[in-house]
Amino acid sequence: MLGSASLQFSLHHVDASSSARSGLLKVPHGIVETPAFMPVGTQGTVKAVTPRELAESGTSIILANTYHLALRPGSDIVRDAGGLHRFMAWDGPILTDSGGFQVFSLATLNKIDDEGVSFRSHIDGSSMHLTPERSIEIQNDLSADIIMAFDQCPPATADRSIIAEAVARTARWAERSVAAHGRDDQALFGIVQGGLHEDLRFLSAGQITALGFPGYAIGGVSLGETPLEMRRVVRAVAPLLPFEKPRYVMGVGRPSDIVHMVGSGMDLFDCVMPTRHARNASLFTRSGLLKMRNFSLARDYRPVEPGCPCYTCRTFSRAYLRHLYSRNEMLAGILGTIHNLTFFQGLMSDLREAIRTDRYAEFGASYREGEPLEVD
Amino acid sequence: MLGSASLQFSLHHVDASSSARSGLLKVPHGIVETPAFMPVGTQGTVKAVTPRELAESGTSIILANTYHLALRPGSDIVRDAGGLHRFMAWDGPILTDSGGFQVFSLATLNKIDDEGVSFRSHIDGSSMHLTPERSIEIQNDLSADIIMAFDQCPPATADRSIIAEAVARTARWAERSVAAHGRDDQALFGIVQGGLHEDLRFLSAGQITALGFPGYAIGGVSLGETPLEMRRVVRAVAPLLPFEKPRYVMGVGRPSDIVHMVGSGMDLFDCVMPTRHARNASLFTRSGLLKMRNFSLARDYRPVEPGCPCYTCRTFSRAYLRHLYSRNEMLAGILGTIHNLTFFQGLMSDLREAIRTDRYAEFGASYREGEPLEVD
Repeated sequence: MLGSASLQFSLHHVDASSSARSGLLKVPHGIVETPAFMPVGTQGTVKAVTPRELAESGTSIILANTYHLALRPGSDIVRDAGGLHRFMAWDGPILTDSGGFQVFSLATLNKIDDEGVSFRSHIDGSSMHLTPERSIEIQNDLSADIIMAFDQCPPATADRSIIAEAVARTARWAERSVAAHGRDDQALFGIVQGGLHEDLRFLSAGQITALGFPGYAIGGVSLGETPLEMRRVVRAVAPLLPFEKPRYVMGVGRPSDIVHMVGSGMDLFDCVMPTRHARNASLFTRSGLLKMRNFSLARDYRPVEPGCPCYTCRTFSRAYLRHLYSRNEMLAGILGTIHNLTFFQGLMSDLREAIRTDRYAEFGASYREGEPLEVD
Repeated sequence: MLGSASLQFSLHHVDASSSARSGLLKVPHGIVETPAFMPVGTQGTVKAVTPRELAESGTSIILANTYHLALRPGSDIVRDAGGLHRFMAWDGPILTDSGGFQVFSLATLNKIDDEGVSFRSHIDGSSMHLTPERSIEIQNDLSADIIMAFDQCPPATADRSIIAEAVARTARWAERSVAAHGRDDQALFGIVQGGLHEDLRFLSAGQITALGFPGYAIGGVSLGETPLEMRRVVRAVAPLLPFEKPRYVMGVGRPSDIVHMVGSGMDLFDCVMPTRHARNASLFTRSGLLKMRNFSLARDYRPVEPGCPCYTCRTFSRAYLRHLYSRNEMLAGILGTIHNLTFFQGLMSDLREAIRTDRYAEFGASYREGEPLEVD
């Protein structure tokens, strides 16, 4: 099953001078304005914030990790709680990944063949087995609005032959994922693989789009490539994905990467960057990253980002946050996460507005983080 | 200066069958219903919660630690931020301790004489010096509503001669604290010492009350004594403190201790127990402590405490919290702290209501935590 009826995607505007587009994604738990950024709730919690703080940050959809939740607490416990929405008290849309990426990046692989993957848990070393059918079963238990086909995700630096094999296997697993999916209230997205090889990406895109998914992801672009390589791949693949379907870049990314890939016509993004940076005392501002333990902030009584609408910036000074970070107080990570999420969601809101008013190019040109926005 | 005009304390009711009393404490930043429990914001943050979550827990007044804030970030930085209320964005009443307890319990003492205390910081080993004058100066910088005279606080198990010396020194330091205090918008409280020796406590109470403070604390009762010894001391000392002034037991305590000491006529309490227990996965319920990592909770979909009005209990299950605690997610400590603070504030609210309706004895008799409530 594809679950296509559970998802409606309407494009409202395409920017006059790029492929950037704005739209609305409707899924059972709510409406998402696109382009959208999904904070990562790996273990059923977006680290350091409550669901209400998450909503206040402007977040409308989050990602959760199938691999982690299958290990702990176990998808049966989440299912019996009434699904992940109820378990974690997030009433908005959720997307779960397939577990493939984590199996190939976190776990200790024992065996991989057409049937599936055997591996050892990164938590306790216990033996686990994941197949397309099992991934879909777990995702059915978790009950996210959008679920992902099970894919093989090799490092981008792997030999071409390995990546070619992964493309072929990902296509076969995509078919099995469709066959295994038994719920019509969860939309199933396909994933395009192919590493940095444009010909393999084209091959994969052809195979995956042939299955008629209600949405598509470009996988494996966050695995060790340079930003320019990532952007090149996305720019090349995006036009091969159906125009009228949502397009998702998995694991991306930095604000400048998001800005760029929106210009290539991508609609959805996820990344741990805002939350992880916040816990590591790096807060985003329009003029660059603020390192919050820096002594120069000890007497800086301005907010982290003057004008930022978040609770943190409305309420506390850089000096206070510097004190909290320096003393490793939990409130540091909490307030930092609130700010960084608000920053990312503000960027998405600005991007949507720029697209709606045909000013994407102007916006992109003005957006700098110390590295070039343009490929080539 | 005593700052007496900045504080109004009105007793509204005294329980018919005990010394328990309910009242209102008015200080510059707000009104506190007594008996009241003050969560501890050691480093300018009540650990793991935002100020708005703190207010939602029913908290009206908090305690902050002069010793910690003097070390980091330094009281001048807090002063230049506009005081501690503004620095930490807590607009309600604050009480700061004098630093004496921490100097004697956390720091490495170098020298103590009538002039003051030399010690090494527990953070970086740097040499520090604290005197009554310096303690008051720091507390003036912090700008809490209620500040404490600088006292010497030996372990309760120390030789009687050491405790007698501490009583004498605490009396001299109390006078110097009064002389050093230069602000009329901060009420200065005196502290009674004397360990477990009732005669020394009586001596200290006489010396300290002779100075006419607008409020009094019983210090040193949380230092290693058994609950019965602590309660005995408080029961003996409370009647020696002026009836019409607020009475504060420093560093107490467990719910059953609070219930008991309210019956002795005490009005204010502070303790790290609700916040520290929450971070250590121990949550309070009326039927005892819930150990949140316990496997028996893995499929327990009830709230931590059915009927509890806190955000945590209204929103999440024990199974979810068990998952968060087991994975060491920050949200565990956040949600646990919200619950435990609400539990303590709910206890205080129940106590106030019991007093107002002359049911304190009944309430106290029904309150059990596995150890007897009664002294003797």
